[in-house]
This record gives sequence, structure tokens and C-alpha cells, in this order.
Amino acid sequence: MSAVINKDRLWESLMQLAEIGATPKGGVCRISLSDEDRRARDLFCTWARDAGCDIRIDAIGNIFARRPGNDAAAAPVVTGSHIDSQPLGGKFDGAYGVMAGLEVVRALNDAGIETAAPLEIVDWTDEEGARFAAGCIGSGVFSGHRDLNDALSLSDAEGTTVADALREIGYAGDIAPGSIPFKAYFEAHIEQGPVLEAAGLPIGTVIGAQGQRCFMVTLTGVDGHAGTLPMAKRQDTFVGTAKITVALSELAATYDPPAVITVGHVRVSPNSRNTIPGRTVFTIDSRHPDTDVLQRMEADITRICTDIAKADGLELQMDAVTRAEPVAFDPGCVDAVRTACRERQIRFMDIHSGAGHDACKIAAVAPTGMIFVPCEDGISHNELESARAEDLATGAQVLLDAMVKVAG
Amino acid sequence: MSAVINKDRLWESLMQLAEIGATPKGGVCRISLSDEDRRARDLFCTWARDAGCDIRIDAIGNIFARRPGNDAAAAPVVTGSHIDSQPLGGKFDGAYGVMAGLEVVRALNDAGIETAAPLEIVDWTDEEGARFAAGCIGSGVFSGHRDLNDALSLSDAEGTTVADALREIGYAGDIAPGSIPFKAYFEAHIEQGPVLEAAGLPIGTVIGAQGQRCFMVTLTGVDGHAGTLPMAKRQDTFVGTAKITVALSELAATYDPPAVITVGHVRVSPNSRNTIPGRTVFTIDSRHPDTDVLQRMEADITRICTDIAKADGLELQMDAVTRAEPVAFDPGCVDAVRTACRERQIRFMDIHSGAGHDACKIAAVAPTGMIFVPCEDGISHNELESARAEDLATGAQVLLDAMVKVAG
Repeated sequence: MSAVINKDRLWESLMQLAEIGATPKGGVCRISLSDEDRRARDLFCTWARDAGCDIRIDAIGNIFARRPGNDAAAAPVVTGSHIDSQPLGGKFDGAYGVMAGLEVVRALNDAGIETAAPLEIVDWTDEEGARFAAGCIGSGVFSGHRDLNDALSLSDAEGTTVADALREIGYAGDIAPGSIPFKAYFEAHIEQGPVLEAAGLPIGTVIGAQGQRCFMVTLTGVDGHAGTLPMAKRQDTFVGTAKITVALSELAATYDPPAVITVGHVRVSPNSRNTIPGRTVFTIDSRHPDTDVLQRMEADITRICTDIAKADGLELQMDAVTRAEPVAFDPGCVDAVRTACRERQIRFMDIHSGAGHDACKIAAVAPTGMIFVPCEDGISHNELESARAEDLATGAQVLLDAMVKVAG
Repeated sequence: MSAVINKDRLWESLMQLAEIGATPKGGVCRISLSDEDRRARDLFCTWARDAGCDIRIDAIGNIFARRPGNDAAAAPVVTGSHIDSQPLGGKFDGAYGVMAGLEVVRALNDAGIETAAPLEIVDWTDEEGARFAAGCIGSGVFSGHRDLNDALSLSDAEGTTVADALREIGYAGDIAPGSIPFKAYFEAHIEQGPVLEAAGLPIGTVIGAQGQRCFMVTLTGVDGHAGTLPMAKRQDTFVGTAKITVALSELAATYDPPAVITVGHVRVSPNSRNTIPGRTVFTIDSRHPDTDVLQRMEADITRICTDIAKADGLELQMDAVTRAEPVAFDPGCVDAVRTACRERQIRFMDIHSGAGHDACKIAAVAPTGMIFVPCEDGISHNELESARAEDLATGAQVLLDAMVKVAG
């Protein structure tokens, strides 16, 4: 006999959770360690206790809800994600992974199935990075990517530290982050991209996450009067930025499809319609799942910026603000997900994650896998983010099967 | 016997005036109708009275300082400019034209020369447009381009109207703007561009001012996650903006050198390095001295924007925010300037003004000419704006000779 996910119960839980911090356009604003985050955490803890779980909080505010197994000595098989959101985020990004974990426990309870290893649902603190200018704080501290005291002393725009905020909402726990060894970690998440929807597949077996190089580029030229300075005499930093942006967009197309390059943040100075911009600051974000390709892309990006700045007589400053290496998930965990799909005759495809996730941090300290489900039009970090109840249930079923297989 | 400009006196007056609102980097901040503007106006009136002029103020705050002629019935030959500045402006933009007028009167006094027609020095209210979101307020009202009451009710960011500000600084005059007929109007100004400096010439005889078309363009696409949305699926408005900017910069180069196109103001949304920009707003400023060419440029600009938006799957909105027709100065006034140069063996070139000036407004109601002198590196609207005492004196001498020739 096997445990079966209750599609409606999972959907209902997601919708109830989404009422906390609900925005007019159907999204959520549940900034990390805010009062909305506290209420969402409280609701999750209540539901997890009702499902027979024991709750523990660690010193960075990560919540662990354990369903005991019959082998007391075994390390837990863990699943989860985050319930904080972007300022104008969606109902599913993060929340789905936590609610899917809860539904796994509820479905096993319904079926009266006990696993050998304990199962554990985790809500990681501040994945989104919308408040303290650093993302994946909870999973980063847990996995040793980030020092606990450094993380606690991060402060928001108002000067409130993570430590203060944790105390204020009552989630400053006492167990040491990282002190719980995981047998394995699985995270279910919406894809946040259009690949599964376009392929018409309900499941993506995530084999790894792209590496990232993000650069802050400053071009300096000379301000000039837009009406009087002849074109040939200009040192126009916005024209330089435009040439670089067009060249990068062409460059990205010469690499394999997972390669992406984005100019997302641009500041033009003095930003007056009568004045030739003497200074432009912009970001270049590049991602690829292969370190070698990422390095080649970085070399190409640097060359393009250097050549165009030189040709246009502009001064170039280029600083790497992020250098995240690609993550390869554990072959055993990836196979457990694939097998779960095959056994239920669910169609799936291997996929790389373009976004960063808590799972990318945890992969450094535990065998890790991820399960993606489609989201409408690939839209995420947006109030309009949407996903189908059926796909969410399919993802949770695959999660359940994979966890039970590994937990025994 | 002819009157000769006193180079040192002109320079000294400019430097004393520049102390009012002086900025640390050697520029001035003399916002229109501010206390600094009042002090500069007071100083100008004192100097003009000391030079034997009668002062009159009109209802929009323009100051007229008249040196009587021996033909009481003759209309005056007028010169001037403005003594307000940009928030971080230079010592010469505007101030030079007013101080050159003053030096003309002083030099004529020294030489004991009386003209037939009276001479008049004018300080036009708010040329820069830095405070009330409208430039050339004084000359615009004088020339009938702008209604007096509309101008008086313009308000600044704090809600202070032009009428209030004029009363506060004591420059709300009683004569009706435009009630003084001009025999001719000459304005001396720094070029605010690099053409004269590059040509090694001290004088530009300004034959007209460029027309201008300025557009506000909005591209709308779809926000997306920078890590997950494949390049081929993107509707990236910043890439669209970049393609348009590069194409416009190439377009401008296909026209004659006075043609300029500038993208000076850019706002990217949501302006996050992790998000593909779903919306970008930017300005396109184009200028040329010929209306037909300006129209062709507008057609080309529209076609480029339309084609690129269509190819990239972006929605385009394009609004004309400025449509100023080219101004041709009076052939008689232009010739008077050329003749003045030739008679003193001063090398000159004909030139178009790329910037707007009070003279462009006055040209509608009086025979008008302008005299440009070089400024260092063409830099203006900048604290570093600089000009040589010798060139400034040469310009004032040409101004004096031209005015005397016309005044008789």
C-alpha cells in the first residue's frame, strides 16, 4: 500500500498560507522575519505539530519539524524550502516546498506508513534576500557557507539586525545550525522558468544548478550638452552601455541554451534628457551549469566591455560582485526522483536550475536533490506567479515516493 | 575714435558676479529668483546705474538697463542674457552676455561715444529652467511665446510660484513685458560646445539655432528571472533600448555633422540585477538646424523604434515632449556681427546654436543675432565650465561694434 498525496488539502494549505501578507494582485509580501513571516511560521508550526511532528528552532531561526521514524539512530530524510517572499512575490516560490513537505507527512499519516529514518520538514530563514541584502541566510549558515555571527549581525535598511529581528518574532532558537546530520535533502519548487510548461511535462528532475558570475560595471566618459556636442566628439557612456548590452545579448546566443546573460540594473548619470551621460553604472549577470563555460563567458564578457570602452574612449571599471560555482546534485538523490517518476508513469525531464535555492547550499553538506513543477508562463518574483493544483500534487507525490525510498 | 573693451574689467566683473552662489569646484549655484539671484541682480543694477543707465523691471522680472541715445524717438539696440544658473552651473553661461553688455556701456562711456538709438542691457528671468520646470520664462513672456499669467503661476517643487518668488526678491516690476520695441537684439554667449575651440577661432557668428524633437519612449515587455528564462524566450526591454540607442547613434552619423541624437534619460524597471527588465522608459533628443532634415530624422527615429520593438516582441509607446522649430537669425544682425569681425581682422566662422537661448525667443519679435566665444573643451552646464579672458573680451568688442553700427 502506498501513501497518496491529497491534492485539495495541499492546495488549501497553500491558499491559507497565502492569506498571510496577501497583496491586491494575488501575490504575497512576506518579507523575512517580519510580522507576516512570524504568522506564517506560527501557522506552519501549528500544522506540523497537528501532524505529529516535533519542532526545533536553530540559532539562525531555521525551523525543523520532525516526524519520528522507527530507527531512532538514523539521520533524517529532510525536505523543505522557505516561506519568506519577495516584496511583491508569488504564492508558490518557497511556500510550495514547505507545504509539500507537510503534505508528505499528512499523507503518510493517512496511510499509516512509518519510515525507518525520521522525516523532517524545514523552513529555511530568509532565502529571498529582500531585507538583509543577503539571500539563503538560514541554509547558508546551516551548510557552513556563512558564519553564524556574521549572519546575525547583518542589518536591514532601518538598522535592525537579523539577531534583533529573530528575537522580536520569537524565532531565535538554541540548537546549533548544522548540528543535525541529514541522510538526504529534497526540495520541491516551482521552476520559475518556462521550460517544463513548453515541454508539456509535469516534473523536472533537477540535476544541478547553474553557476553565476555577476559584475558591476562603471563606464566614465564626459557629460556634455545634448544640443551642442557633435556626435564625433562625444564620450557617451550610455551609448557604450548600449553597445555592450547588444553585444552580450548576441554573445549569449552563441552559447548553449542554458547560458543566459542579463543587464538588469542600470543607473545613468546625470540622467537628464539635455545632457550626454558622462557616467553609467550597470550589472551583467551571467549563468551556466558548467564552470569551464562560465569561465569562457567571463573572458568574453570582459573582452567585450574592454574593447567597446576602448573604442568609445570610455574609462571602464568592472568588479565581480558574485562568483557562485555550479552545483551538481547527488546522483543517488536525482535517481530517487527519476525512479519515483517512472514508477508512477509520470513524464519528466532532467533540468538545470537557473535560480539559486536553499538546496544549492545544502548540497555541500548532504546528498541533495530537487523536484521542479511548471509555473504559468515561467513567471516568478511577481504577484502573478501561478501554478496548477494538479502539477503541485504530482510534485509532492514524487517527493513523497523519493523520500520514502531513501528513508526506508 | 572707437571704443575699446577693457578685458580686465570685464573679467573682474565676471569674477565678482561669480562669487554670488560660488560652489566649491569653481562653478555657481544661482537658481532663478533665489536669494543668490537677487544679490546678483542687485549687483548688476548697481553697476548699470553707476554706468549711467536707467533701470526698469517688467512684470515677469526682466531687468532693462538703458543707456540713453541722442535720438529720443529711436527704439533701443538691446543686448543681454541671463544671470540665473543651473544648480551646478558655470561662471559664464548667461552671466557673460549680461556682463559683456555692461562692458559695452562702460567702454562707450570711457570713449565718450553717444549713439543715436539708446542701448539697453537686459537680464532675462529664468533662462535655465532649473526651478520652475520651464526655461526662457522671461524672454518667452516678452516675445509672446508664453502667457504672462501662466508664467506667474508656474510653481517650484516647494509650491512657490514665480509671482511669489518675484515679490520675495523684490523684482516684480510694473511695466508690461513686450512693451519695449527693440531696434535689434544681440546676445553674446559661450558656445557650450567644442567647435570654435577645435577650429582655433575666437568668434562664432550664429546664423540660427537648431530645431529640436524630443521623444519619451516606453518599451513594455515581461519581467523575468535572470537565471531561468532562456535568451530566446525573453522580452527584455533593456536589450530593446540598447538596440535602439546603438541604431540611433549610427543614424546620427549618417546625417550632416550638426545633426545630434542623444539618449540622456533612462529608467529601467524593476532595475534589479536578478530580473529581466519588463519596462524601460527613455528619452530621445534630436536636433538639426533644418526643419526638413529634422522631419526626416523624426521619421527615421520612429521607424527604428517601431522595427526594433516589433522584432523583439515589445510594446512601444512614443510621445513627442518637445517640438521646437529651427530659428534663423536676422541676416542684417548676422551681417553686422560678421562686419564687426572683419573690420577688426578677427577670424570667425558661421555656426548654429545647438542649445536654446533667450535670443531664440526674441528672434520672433525683433531682428536678432548672437555672438559665440569658445569655452574650454566645450564643457557647460558644469562647474568646470571655463573660458579665456581674451576670447571673452574679443566677443564683447564684436558686440560693441555691431551694436554701435546698428544704433548709429
